[in-house]
Amino acid sequence: MTGKTKGDALETEIASQESLVQMLKSDPSSPQEEKEAAIEKLEELKTNYKKLTGEEYGEGEMVKNVTVKESTTSNMKGRGDMKKQTKLGIEVTKAENYSEWYTEVITKAEMIEYYDVSGCYVLRPWAYAIWEFIQEWFDEKIKKLGVKNCYFPIFVSQGALEREKTHMTDFAPEVAWVTRAGQSDLAEAIAIRPTSETVMYPSYAKWVQSHRDLPIKLNQWCNVVRWEFKHPTPFLRTREFLWQEGHTAFQHKSEAEEEVFKILDLYTQVYTDLLAIPVIKGRKTEKEKFAGADFTTTVEAYVPINGRGIQGATSHHLGQNFSKMFNISFEDPSGGGKVYAWQNSWGLSTRTIGALVMIHGDDSGLVLPPRLAATQIIIIPVGVTNHSKDEGRAVVIEKAKVINDMLVDAGIRAEIDARDNISCGWKFNHWELKGVPMRIEIGPKDLANNQVICVIRYSGEKRVVSYADLTVKCKDMLDEIHHGMYNRILAARESHKKIVTAWNDFREFLDRKYILLAPFCGHIECEEEIRKESVRDDKNDAGAPAMGAKSLCIPLEQPDVALPDDCINKNCSEKPKFFALFGRSY
Amino acid sequence: MTGKTKGDALETEIASQESLVQMLKSDPSSPQEEKEAAIEKLEELKTNYKKLTGEEYGEGEMVKNVTVKESTTSNMKGRGDMKKQTKLGIEVTKAENYSEWYTEVITKAEMIEYYDVSGCYVLRPWAYAIWEFIQEWFDEKIKKLGVKNCYFPIFVSQGALEREKTHMTDFAPEVAWVTRAGQSDLAEAIAIRPTSETVMYPSYAKWVQSHRDLPIKLNQWCNVVRWEFKHPTPFLRTREFLWQEGHTAFQHKSEAEEEVFKILDLYTQVYTDLLAIPVIKGRKTEKEKFAGADFTTTVEAYVPINGRGIQGATSHHLGQNFSKMFNISFEDPSGGGKVYAWQNSWGLSTRTIGALVMIHGDDSGLVLPPRLAATQIIIIPVGVTNHSKDEGRAVVIEKAKVINDMLVDAGIRAEIDARDNISCGWKFNHWELKGVPMRIEIGPKDLANNQVICVIRYSGEKRVVSYADLTVKCKDMLDEIHHGMYNRILAARESHKKIVTAWNDFREFLDRKYILLAPFCGHIECEEEIRKESVRDDKNDAGAPAMGAKSLCIPLEQPDVALPDDCINKNCSEKPKFFALFGRSY
Repeated sequence: MTGKTKGDALETEIASQESLVQMLKSDPSSPQEEKEAAIEKLEELKTNYKKLTGEEYGEGEMVKNVTVKESTTSNMKGRGDMKKQTKLGIEVTKAENYSEWYTEVITKAEMIEYYDVSGCYVLRPWAYAIWEFIQEWFDEKIKKLGVKNCYFPIFVSQGALEREKTHMTDFAPEVAWVTRAGQSDLAEAIAIRPTSETVMYPSYAKWVQSHRDLPIKLNQWCNVVRWEFKHPTPFLRTREFLWQEGHTAFQHKSEAEEEVFKILDLYTQVYTDLLAIPVIKGRKTEKEKFAGADFTTTVEAYVPINGRGIQGATSHHLGQNFSKMFNISFEDPSGGGKVYAWQNSWGLSTRTIGALVMIHGDDSGLVLPPRLAATQIIIIPVGVTNHSKDEGRAVVIEKAKVINDMLVDAGIRAEIDARDNISCGWKFNHWELKGVPMRIEIGPKDLANNQVICVIRYSGEKRVVSYADLTVKCKDMLDEIHHGMYNRILAARESHKKIVTAWNDFREFLDRKYILLAPFCGHIECEEEIRKESVRDDKNDAGAPAMGAKSLCIPLEQPDVALPDDCINKNCSEKPKFFALFGRSY
Repeated sequence: MTGKTKGDALETEIASQESLVQMLKSDPSSPQEEKEAAIEKLEELKTNYKKLTGEEYGEGEMVKNVTVKESTTSNMKGRGDMKKQTKLGIEVTKAENYSEWYTEVITKAEMIEYYDVSGCYVLRPWAYAIWEFIQEWFDEKIKKLGVKNCYFPIFVSQGALEREKTHMTDFAPEVAWVTRAGQSDLAEAIAIRPTSETVMYPSYAKWVQSHRDLPIKLNQWCNVVRWEFKHPTPFLRTREFLWQEGHTAFQHKSEAEEEVFKILDLYTQVYTDLLAIPVIKGRKTEKEKFAGADFTTTVEAYVPINGRGIQGATSHHLGQNFSKMFNISFEDPSGGGKVYAWQNSWGLSTRTIGALVMIHGDDSGLVLPPRLAATQIIIIPVGVTNHSKDEGRAVVIEKAKVINDMLVDAGIRAEIDARDNISCGWKFNHWELKGVPMRIEIGPKDLANNQVICVIRYSGEKRVVSYADLTVKCKDMLDEIHHGMYNRILAARESHKKIVTAWNDFREFLDRKYILLAPFCGHIECEEEIRKESVRDDKNDAGAPAMGAKSLCIPLEQPDVALPDDCINKNCSEKPKFFALFGRSY
């Protein structure tokens, strides 16, 4: 094996070991010595990696699954002992140790369970429900555009996979191969889809005989596999993930182009209207576009805690690249012989859930935007003991149930937590950690005053609300919460977005967690230089090694200022073509 | 290689070649000589197989994907030349060549596209929509039972897969293994889930610390892979298929047992209320139960054309078999130490669609039950020419659109086919082939009389219906169609279901396409003898080699007659325990 190959093998081993450590840590019943042994082995592997490659393992990567040193609880901001004992609360702050915070939130909020195959994670109901809400919304919208759902096989023959070369070159290193079934070796290895262009388009070629067979507008909700060798991170970089992939083919280029942007608008709405996250719409640069596309459009979000950009979803115009390779063609109805179809593909994945966690989560845990919360309002009886002999208790619980039924009947996803074996304080923490957008407290005093206390998760604000118009007020408050969450992130982003024209400013503001609009020539080599020149060796305060800047997109809405004469890269002599948005990114 | 192993390898090769032949045949643009060469090679492989194993390839199997001899159109019952030319209609009758009929229906009705990985098929929107209706209905029902959706990884480590031995022994021969990613060989092969017991239960073990953590009720909608080496058949036996799998764990045995039957009732309703197919509820025998279950319950349908039974869906009570292996345990709250959870698993797959095709389809093609039809009513303007100068045409189309809008507003999935480049006759055939439950014809004469003609797909019946109460009548007719389809199949089954107590009767009625209620001792060896003794060497008139009889189930509702003293197997000396339902089966 060469050093490179050895390094690859070690990376795989390290990733597996990380996964094991993570699993042991998340399992309260696993013995301490087993955990320690696993952590020790992980350290050893990383040391070997550094010796072999001369680099730190995971250099340039951000969210580290494992922070080997157990975090101390030095910065617990007045949290009680109970919390520490039950391990209920989040034990590090988001600013203090971002990657540990992320791991704690997704496990303690019961979104993710770790798994014994590296890079694979269990999506628990609390996370999966978010995906179901997104599915329901998006599915309805694309059906209105005439898109139909279907299902193509997960397996791809080598021949089909390799048909479009540019595309294949990009995906080949991450393709998982099935080579054996039962005890029999397969005559030819079969790939698992990393995406389905090459799976679907041979069928499209059969179905398109005439222009009357167009457009074809299909979508599938499915799993795909990309065998990443980098740090896996739940939701963000996983070896298997769920997504929808739309694949459309048109007679005319203009129809395809129009659709690319219609879908981009829907993706925008998923972020703004459901996830309560503002996004910037744009085109990807040549360097960042989808392999095999004429152009890629994207929605990009901003993560305030570390100032990084995160790609939200992409909608590609494939031009005729695939239709020529797969022969998706028809006779030009106006004469002129054989012509090729114009194609798009577009995808939105469970990565959305990771963006939600990173962007909205806080030191108390997850914060769910109301429209994606399985439970929007949690009702908790307070001010009564848990003893069944407490007469006040029965009355309060009865009223809480009435309120719950009223809200549920009005279409609000309310739930009541009347468990008698745990304290109110524990319940408050529990549902805050799980990110439920609003809590309703009701106790004997509230009963007497015909009111409840509403506590808003994202802001901590408390409001006294009378019974009279509770349902309407709750609906309004949920909407208000949505907009409040959106606006808070928008403000954070707007205060960290800047036009820069000088390289020094670029570097300075990048390190101050800005995303930057900079004049750019658009060339792949130039973008590569920008990345290299913006790497920083030390680590920033969120514990992230400072990777170089990438272009996030070329915003569709360009800044309302004249384009300067020089590209942002001080070594570049080309004229800039546009302002591109740069930033550290996921 | 041993003869057995060689046979296995040949089976794989034959299956691949069959897939290729099928694909070439379904592709109008593939050259004739390529088709012929592929067919020739297939014949050759089968000859080799017979030489090697002494058996015909696919013996004991029914639906053969490929009928090598192209069917002649001798039995076309007055179909016009147009049909033959356009290859629109089904070219064989269901009775004449059942397997060719099945292939024609699923491809020409645009349900399935063949694919270049053997045993994998494309589910086109027309088929996938059926699955979406089933999903929507069932998902709502299980959520009402408190089941939540989630998603577990598709990959299983070898260790987890092999934990429950009985279970693993059954699935091992069909497991597909990933051994390579990109260019790197994996340190350990990773399996693709054939079902998710071993994927999920390690997590369950972590989540269950106390009886308060129970019940766990999870479900996932996903793909699974079982690398069958037998004849693949679209929907019925495929290497990848879609299903839901529910996995629940309870504190008490009684809770688990109660749920098994609740789910079985939901599966029954999927068949009776959606698919319009009667089913018999029962328990599986020891021989046929799920590997690792204490008992398996099932719903079994009857396929009139060949008298075979088909398993509809199964709901298993796993007892404590898995909870002991995976240590899903808790402290008995009433004292008594550590106890294990009681578990169920239950699944319903896209095989349902295959049952629908086989059971309801006829010589004109697919017949969809109204509740699962993407298009319930197709409206076709008639009696007007396709020339745009025909003034009558515009008026008729206008009225057709008004009717369409009215039906759609009333929640009926209606569609209008006003294409001007094809004839009415072609449209009639097309929508009949696709199985749309009802056609509305509207022409100038109908306009004058304020009426339309409704044509019912399954019965061919025509009715004149006035505008006045069209919406209500259409809704009623769709319901009537559902019940009519159900009752027709019920009648076919009831006339082919019989209590037999003598072995000669068993054999005779089995060959006359009956399913048989016979006294049975329940032993595995005895059931195996019954199967062997009921094999017939010649083929029956549906072209199916006559496999031996299997037990379909032990009906929950036992016949209202006394159980005889002898088991149906004349060589068996054990006392019968119950009447079991036997038949040839899928």
